[in-house]
Amino acid sequence: MAGVYSYLPLGILVLRKIENIIREEMNAIGGREIFLTSLQDPKIWQKTERWSDKTVDIWFKTKLKNGAELGLANTHEEEIANFMTHHIHSYRDLPAYLYQIQTKFRNETRSKSGLIRAREFLMKDLYSFSRDEKELDKFFDKCAGAYRKIFKRVGIADRTYLTFASGGSFSKYSYEFQTLAEAGEDTIYLDEKNKIAINKEVYRPEVVRDLGLEKKKLAVRKAIEVGNLFKLGTKYSTALGLFYLDERGQKRPVVMGSYGIGLGRLMAAVVEVLADERGLVWPESIAPFRTHLIELRGGLGRDLYQKLSREGVTVLYDDRKVTAGEKFNDADLIGIPWRLTVSEKTVKKIEVKKRSSKQINLLTYGELVKKLL
Amino acid sequence: MAGVYSYLPLGILVLRKIENIIREEMNAIGGREIFLTSLQDPKIWQKTERWSDKTVDIWFKTKLKNGAELGLANTHEEEIANFMTHHIHSYRDLPAYLYQIQTKFRNETRSKSGLIRAREFLMKDLYSFSRDEKELDKFFDKCAGAYRKIFKRVGIADRTYLTFASGGSFSKYSYEFQTLAEAGEDTIYLDEKNKIAINKEVYRPEVVRDLGLEKKKLAVRKAIEVGNLFKLGTKYSTALGLFYLDERGQKRPVVMGSYGIGLGRLMAAVVEVLADERGLVWPESIAPFRTHLIELRGGLGRDLYQKLSREGVTVLYDDRKVTAGEKFNDADLIGIPWRLTVSEKTVKKIEVKKRSSKQINLLTYGELVKKLL
Repeated sequence: MAGVYSYLPLGILVLRKIENIIREEMNAIGGREIFLTSLQDPKIWQKTERWSDKTVDIWFKTKLKNGAELGLANTHEEEIANFMTHHIHSYRDLPAYLYQIQTKFRNETRSKSGLIRAREFLMKDLYSFSRDEKELDKFFDKCAGAYRKIFKRVGIADRTYLTFASGGSFSKYSYEFQTLAEAGEDTIYLDEKNKIAINKEVYRPEVVRDLGLEKKKLAVRKAIEVGNLFKLGTKYSTALGLFYLDERGQKRPVVMGSYGIGLGRLMAAVVEVLADERGLVWPESIAPFRTHLIELRGGLGRDLYQKLSREGVTVLYDDRKVTAGEKFNDADLIGIPWRLTVSEKTVKKIEVKKRSSKQINLLTYGELVKKLL
Repeated sequence: MAGVYSYLPLGILVLRKIENIIREEMNAIGGREIFLTSLQDPKIWQKTERWSDKTVDIWFKTKLKNGAELGLANTHEEEIANFMTHHIHSYRDLPAYLYQIQTKFRNETRSKSGLIRAREFLMKDLYSFSRDEKELDKFFDKCAGAYRKIFKRVGIADRTYLTFASGGSFSKYSYEFQTLAEAGEDTIYLDEKNKIAINKEVYRPEVVRDLGLEKKKLAVRKAIEVGNLFKLGTKYSTALGLFYLDERGQKRPVVMGSYGIGLGRLMAAVVEVLADERGLVWPESIAPFRTHLIELRGGLGRDLYQKLSREGVTVLYDDRKVTAGEKFNDADLIGIPWRLTVSEKTVKKIEVKKRSSKQINLLTYGELVKKLL
């Protein structure tokens, strides 16, 4: 059904690599992984008035056998604020940065953009817990830096821009990272030279002025929101009783932030940016395999497959009994970085082509391995 | 709430290690990873009459905004059989082995055994697709072998027994692996010498005879079901239209099997088997950290922490300002394999203690590293 997508073997390999890159970068800024549940108790969401379908219109709700209502988490601010009341008591427990990579459920009325707006999707959500706004601001910038690294590692950095969006009740703006793509659902006003954009939702003369930009230098572009950073302030901590005692024994609400990246949406953004008319083009960092081996006669590729595998080079080995044309077309469609072709014609040499280039080289095994290792 | 559990930073590290061990062993027997969705369309479950709450009493059900009913998957036989109709057409497409590591939802009326019977939990479920029963049987034994490797790697092999349980409509028996533990919800009749057990649900004189066992040699034991293997036959493939053309062009239903391991439950079984009265005892293979470093004066451990980290040895560094006794108690409670203590008394030596032993050794850094690498 629309908005609900399974991953096939090649897709899940990409998704797991994206997951690992995100995990590495979140660990690098002090994030610690946890794993919260999807099933949610209404009680904690009623405290912030986010249980009602009138205030949050994307809940999937269900029931226990005894009739008690439950929700499927579409985000986890309330849950984690509640949970941290058991772990944060004093200023010594702060700051704390917790993240998870976990399924979110959102009952979208319309779900028309494939993986860009799914009803069920994997999300990395990090939550920061700080003593004050200054400490929050510091981490906010650090996390934005980690996000830039992630977007660079998956190959979309040069099409991805820091974008100012609605800040909610606590702060003037939230940050988004928007990747330029026609398939995007968002509209942004981009200052390409300064590499800053404004989301249409807050695009007003005073905002343009406030950010030191000039209206006539802004280009209207379609984009995919690949990451967001929210300053939440003390809204959730106050509502859920998340307080700490400061150095002078004063009780204060914890200052929170939340930081999300949808894994499937990020994957979709990479596809939108890098694919060409013949199919997908995966960067080496997240490609399901590094090489795609095509044999033009049965069994001819077996030896090369085994040798490369032993070297730790992953190989998608196409040993199907179909035409060469079909194999080449499928290789383009799948988009693995290196296409290797072995045929009787070339005998001792391997025809090597990068997916992102048109050039074909005839290499010996030794030359190929040198390129790949 | 009961049956719904979040994982904290140490717990998720254990869970991820269990996940990786399972993934490695499933890949080693030809399994390919996929990722199906939790949200389920009733249509495909109606085909096997498993949508009704009368036949399956553990559904969590929810609704789209347009009122259409959906279910949260408690298993995936119907979904994957339906899905494979797009991928299996001829005998050349068989056998196929697909697995996922994904959240399952089960609306249990009572959920009293912690992680052993959760309402939301991560499960590895593999599905096999074979031409005939002979091919199914071959894989069945192969998967049982992979399961034995998994249980060995997580440290519970010598308390875990192949158990014959109800086979459902297609086969005489299903296989379970049952781990002896007082906390277990299952009762088995165990022949310890032959390392075979019978689940209470099928324990009858003719079954004892059929398996070549003797009633008087069977001991009644409590156990946790840590894995199961079902021969499904053609029940799901016939209902969902999963057929293939054999070598002679004859249309035949695909013969299926399903193979499950609950990750949280396996973790709980390891705890039940290995923990002692002072706390958890993790085996090295799935411990959240390899070493637990206790400093008896502030900063004394920093150097060792950095040196070990550089060697790739993971360290949980307890630099809290609490008493030595509290630190030792917490180390026992957490159960990391190697406890390292540095104090002013021992100066150049490190006090090394294994969690599973009472012996304490004074080692130089060089001696310690030799033990750990």
